[in-house]
Amino acid sequence: MAEIFGERLARAVRRTNTCAVVGLDPHLDRFPKPLKARFAGREGGSFRAEAARAVVEFNRMVIDAVAPIVPAIKPQFAFYEALGAPGFAALEETCGMARDAGLLIVGDAKRGDIASTAAAYAQSILAPDGPFHCDAVTVNPWMGADTLDPFLNVCARTGGGLFVLVRTTNPGSRWLQHHGQPSAAERVARELAEKGRELTGSSGWSSLGAVVGAMTGDEAAHLRECMPGAWFLVPGVGAQGGSTTDALAGQRSDGMGCLVNSSRGVLYPPEAAIERYNEAPQEFISEMAKAHAERFQLDA
Amino acid sequence: MAEIFGERLARAVRRTNTCAVVGLDPHLDRFPKPLKARFAGREGGSFRAEAARAVVEFNRMVIDAVAPIVPAIKPQFAFYEALGAPGFAALEETCGMARDAGLLIVGDAKRGDIASTAAAYAQSILAPDGPFHCDAVTVNPWMGADTLDPFLNVCARTGGGLFVLVRTTNPGSRWLQHHGQPSAAERVARELAEKGRELTGSSGWSSLGAVVGAMTGDEAAHLRECMPGAWFLVPGVGAQGGSTTDALAGQRSDGMGCLVNSSRGVLYPPEAAIERYNEAPQEFISEMAKAHAERFQLDA
Repeated sequence: MAEIFGERLARAVRRTNTCAVVGLDPHLDRFPKPLKARFAGREGGSFRAEAARAVVEFNRMVIDAVAPIVPAIKPQFAFYEALGAPGFAALEETCGMARDAGLLIVGDAKRGDIASTAAAYAQSILAPDGPFHCDAVTVNPWMGADTLDPFLNVCARTGGGLFVLVRTTNPGSRWLQHHGQPSAAERVARELAEKGRELTGSSGWSSLGAVVGAMTGDEAAHLRECMPGAWFLVPGVGAQGGSTTDALAGQRSDGMGCLVNSSRGVLYPPEAAIERYNEAPQEFISEMAKAHAERFQLDA
Repeated sequence: MAEIFGERLARAVRRTNTCAVVGLDPHLDRFPKPLKARFAGREGGSFRAEAARAVVEFNRMVIDAVAPIVPAIKPQFAFYEALGAPGFAALEETCGMARDAGLLIVGDAKRGDIASTAAAYAQSILAPDGPFHCDAVTVNPWMGADTLDPFLNVCARTGGGLFVLVRTTNPGSRWLQHHGQPSAAERVARELAEKGRELTGSSGWSSLGAVVGAMTGDEAAHLRECMPGAWFLVPGVGAQGGSTTDALAGQRSDGMGCLVNSSRGVLYPPEAAIERYNEAPQEFISEMAKAHAERFQLDA
C-alpha cells in the first residue's frame, strides 16, 4: 500500500509549521488588471481559451508565492470547469506546477456517485496516471456510504485521501446535516471513523478526512471525538467570515488536525488595496499568504 | 423568462411517445473492437487524447441511432472527466451533436456547492454561452436548500432544469436518504415542490425535477404526491436490474412524469452478441434503443 495521505499531510503541516492552506479559486473578475486585459471583450470559445491561459499564469504566480509558506493548495474544480476543456487543461497544468513546487493538492470537486461512476471520478482526480493527480479530493456522502468505497479503493492504491462533506457552514447547511437524531452529520462522522481505520498510519492519521466548516466549538469538538484520526478541512474563514477560534474548534490538543482554507482572502485585495494589487500582485499575495499562515501556525 | 424546462421535456416525450432516455456513459473497455484499437496500448496523455477522439466517434454513432427514437440523452460527466481536458472537449462536442440532432441533454454531473461556486457550475453546464449548454443537470442537495438557488437562478434565465438527488437505489442509499422522521428524502422532496412553484409552466410541469431511482411502488408514489409537477429521472433499469413496474412507480395517472434512463443496457452488448456488435455497432445500438423506448412508451 502507498503511504497514507493523513501521514503525508501531517509531515507537510509540521514542515511548514502551519495548517493554513490556500484555495485556488480563479475569480476572473477579480484578477489583476493586466491579466484581465487578456480576455476582456472576448466571447464564447475564444473567451474561454484566453481566460484559461490567464488562469494558468495567475496560478503560476500564486504557487510561486505560497509554495514556501503553506503545506497545500486547494483548487476549486467549478471555476476551471466553467471554462470547459481549456479550463480543465489549465487545471491539469496547475496541478503539475503545484506538485513540482512540493505542494500537496486537495482537489475540491465535491464528487459523489455510485459504483463505476465513482471509480471514474476517483481515477480522474487521484490516480498518478490520471490527468490531475491530486493528493486528496472532497466527496459528498448523500448517496450512501457504499459510494465512498470506489474512492477508498483508489486511495489505498495511490496514497490519496478524501475529505467527506460532514458539516458545512452555509446558511442552509443544517437542513439535512442536522436532520434526525443523532444528526445525519454525526452518522456520517461515525461511519468515516469506522471506514478510516484501515487507512490509518502509524502515527494515527487517517486518509479519510472530513470537511467541517468553521463553527462554534461544541459541535466541532464533538465531531473530533467521533473522528480522532481524521484531518478536518475547514472552509469558512477569510471572505466567509469565520473566526480563528471557530476554525480551530475541532483541533486536537496538540494543535494538529484542522487544515484551514482561505481563497479569496489571500488571492484578491480589498477595495483599498486594488491599485497596489494591480501593480505587484505576487508581492500582495505572498503577504496575504504569510498572514494566513501565521494566523494558523502550529506553535501559536 | 425562458421557456420552462419541464414543459419542453413534456413536449419532447409526447413527440417521441416514450419516456425512455439513453445514458451516454463511455465505458472504453466495452467499446466496439475497431474503436478500441485506436487507443489500445497507449498511456497517459496520449491515451487520453486518442480515447477522447474514440468517444466522440462512438457518441456520434449513438446520437445518430437514438435521435429519432428518444427525447433526451444523459451524458455521465465522470467518464469524460476521467480523460481530462480532451475528455471535456469530447463532452462539449457531444453536447453540440446532440443539440443539432434535436435531443434534449441532461448533464449527469451531480454537482453541489455553495454560492459563487454553485453559480460557476450552473453557468458551466446550463448557460447557452457556456461550454456544454445542457438542458438540465443533476444536483446534490446535501449541503443545503440554499445551494440550489444559484442553479435555479440560471434555470430561470436560460430555461434549464434540475434533477435533484432525492432517492437513489444503490445498496447504501437509505443510510442518509431514509434518516430521520420524516425521512431526509421526503424533506428534500417537499422543499423541491415549494421551490419549483415559481418555475412551473402553464400545463403544470416544473423545471425542478428529482432523481428517484427505480424502486418498489409505495415510496415512489408518496414522492409523486409530494412533487406533483416534477419530472422524475429514474436510473436503475437495464444493467442495474430495476423492473419496468419499479421504474414507473412514480408516474402520474396519465403515464407521464418518469424519465427512465438506460446506459449500458443500450450501448453495450451481452456476451453472446459481442461479435455482431463489433461488426455493426450502430445497428445493434439502434435496436436496443428501440426496445428501451418501446418498453417505456406512453401509450403502452
